[in-house]
Amino acid sequence: MATIAVLGAGVMASALTNPARDNGHEVRLVGTHLDDDVIASVRATGLHPNLGVVLDAGVKPYYFSQAADAFAGADVVMVGVNSFGIDWMGEQLRRLLVPGQRVLVVTKGLQADADGSLHILPEVLQRAVGPVAEQVTWQAVVGPCLAAELAVRRDACVVFTGPDQASLDSLARLYRTSYYHVWTSTDFIGHEVGAATKNVFAFAQGFAAGILRANGWEDSPHQLLNYMSGLFAQGSREVHSYIALLGGDPTSGDGLGGVGDMYVTSMGGRNVKAGALVGEGIPFSEVRDVRMKGVTLEGVAAIVVIGGALQRLTERGLVAPGDFPLTRFLYDVVVHDAPLVIPWSSFFGGEPV
Amino acid sequence: MATIAVLGAGVMASALTNPARDNGHEVRLVGTHLDDDVIASVRATGLHPNLGVVLDAGVKPYYFSQAADAFAGADVVMVGVNSFGIDWMGEQLRRLLVPGQRVLVVTKGLQADADGSLHILPEVLQRAVGPVAEQVTWQAVVGPCLAAELAVRRDACVVFTGPDQASLDSLARLYRTSYYHVWTSTDFIGHEVGAATKNVFAFAQGFAAGILRANGWEDSPHQLLNYMSGLFAQGSREVHSYIALLGGDPTSGDGLGGVGDMYVTSMGGRNVKAGALVGEGIPFSEVRDVRMKGVTLEGVAAIVVIGGALQRLTERGLVAPGDFPLTRFLYDVVVHDAPLVIPWSSFFGGEPV
Repeated sequence: MATIAVLGAGVMASALTNPARDNGHEVRLVGTHLDDDVIASVRATGLHPNLGVVLDAGVKPYYFSQAADAFAGADVVMVGVNSFGIDWMGEQLRRLLVPGQRVLVVTKGLQADADGSLHILPEVLQRAVGPVAEQVTWQAVVGPCLAAELAVRRDACVVFTGPDQASLDSLARLYRTSYYHVWTSTDFIGHEVGAATKNVFAFAQGFAAGILRANGWEDSPHQLLNYMSGLFAQGSREVHSYIALLGGDPTSGDGLGGVGDMYVTSMGGRNVKAGALVGEGIPFSEVRDVRMKGVTLEGVAAIVVIGGALQRLTERGLVAPGDFPLTRFLYDVVVHDAPLVIPWSSFFGGEPV
Repeated sequence: MATIAVLGAGVMASALTNPARDNGHEVRLVGTHLDDDVIASVRATGLHPNLGVVLDAGVKPYYFSQAADAFAGADVVMVGVNSFGIDWMGEQLRRLLVPGQRVLVVTKGLQADADGSLHILPEVLQRAVGPVAEQVTWQAVVGPCLAAELAVRRDACVVFTGPDQASLDSLARLYRTSYYHVWTSTDFIGHEVGAATKNVFAFAQGFAAGILRANGWEDSPHQLLNYMSGLFAQGSREVHSYIALLGGDPTSGDGLGGVGDMYVTSMGGRNVKAGALVGEGIPFSEVRDVRMKGVTLEGVAAIVVIGGALQRLTERGLVAPGDFPLTRFLYDVVVHDAPLVIPWSSFFGGEPV
């Protein structure tokens, strides 16, 4: 039996209490300062309001003010905030982490320096927490796993990734169940970059639905699946190229942390919905400021961060101007309200004319 | 201006008359002996009954008995039968091909020798046609392109592949339009194997819908997208492995001819429908013999051919017993009515216990 402290009571981290509890571990679910309502609900009835399910009765809910108590004696610390909270999370972990703990990062994303250098979030956290970074082990979970399905124990396949195989093996053993299938990989960069960059392309998978709506083609026998698949294939190419650019193993993009994750992300969610509005012909600024005001769009945020970094990296000569054409186009759509004219001929290395 | 003879008036080959005609080429659409109704309809009204659209008025329909007339003077010969007709096609091409012609194969699949050796269909055709094989050039088209969408000129991205770059360039120029986006690749094996093997996995993408139906979960907020994505990711891994096994470039599996094509194939069609019936709990033999009797299932046929070949290749020591676990499982489902218990732990190189 292990003791697992979870910081951040978001849907993904909370759903992950299922396999942990089903294996008999002690699970301490610690809300952030923004999660007080969630923790109050879990304490009162077990219901996680954003997941819509009652968590296992053994999950121990903690308010943020009790975080140090929850971390004391924990073997594993799971990091479950969204990517916007990563700097805040670094500050908290700096004071909360205890030497010997194993950190499992759920949050996905990349952070860019002013010169365009991109970093995976576990690296950002390691820098933020200071000396204790060397006294804990760092791992992350990637792969196609919607929280809502995990919350009701539907099958999911994921990868635990980190630099140390022994740590991965022991962590994976804590979580494997009949429905939560865990593989391990030491290609930390490759898997984290794949999982972060695939979010860029979910937005583009929404365009087709919007175009169909705008044209009254929703019930047409002729959909836009070829269009969607062309975008998916170019997205896959760019995910593989990002992995190579940042020094990971591009073949990690072939599996769960790459195209597998991109597949589930393409099936729906907020970024796809935002893309559909753009597909209808609505400028993205109006989607952001009016139609979906206040809605967290992690995929769009990834486009802004990565697309912006690409410009710096191109200026520095580290990326060719013709590389990552779909990311660059999506950046223009979300930052400059570019019209939805897909630059097909720039894809796949460029189509000769 | 070029003259293009199309042998086989199936939906894909017929839809491809659009870009050819839009570029002003002469297009001769030759039905097989099974296509007389189609040719009669196209001659009478232009309507292709299986596509449900009227073909360009300039398409010249030919009955099979007129095939030699159609081939005479053609610069390009497109091979458009389904994979079950490939041996028949070889016999026809043997007498019809004229030295100097460029052959573009639309048909997808692999053929297995008795010892399990697998061959791409252009290779099968080359063997079948005899000496004239050396006097023509061989190319194929792959990528995510549903015929119904191409028939109404919706965007599609494809790859023309073959051993000779100059032939590919000239062929691609004949077909590129504002909606039909053509790239080229000399990784003939890689693209053909990717396009053929991706069909194996479409069947598995249907399972989830059947499971949801059988459980009355169709309208549940909790679907089986994680389950589908795990199968997709393993399918992607196996596509890449097949490409490597047959001597192609595995990175061809990352793009249009691999995961891009698998994506569109996963979105629907007959193989997905058959998989859904299995997902409901119906043994595949009943699906084949009763529920979908007489329906052509190219994906299931690919499972039978490739899964059978894997057994031979494993006996010969050319493939490890643990390789291609999803294909082997699907083979057991379609050949032995195996129950739908996904062997998750065998995926991705095997999950340590």
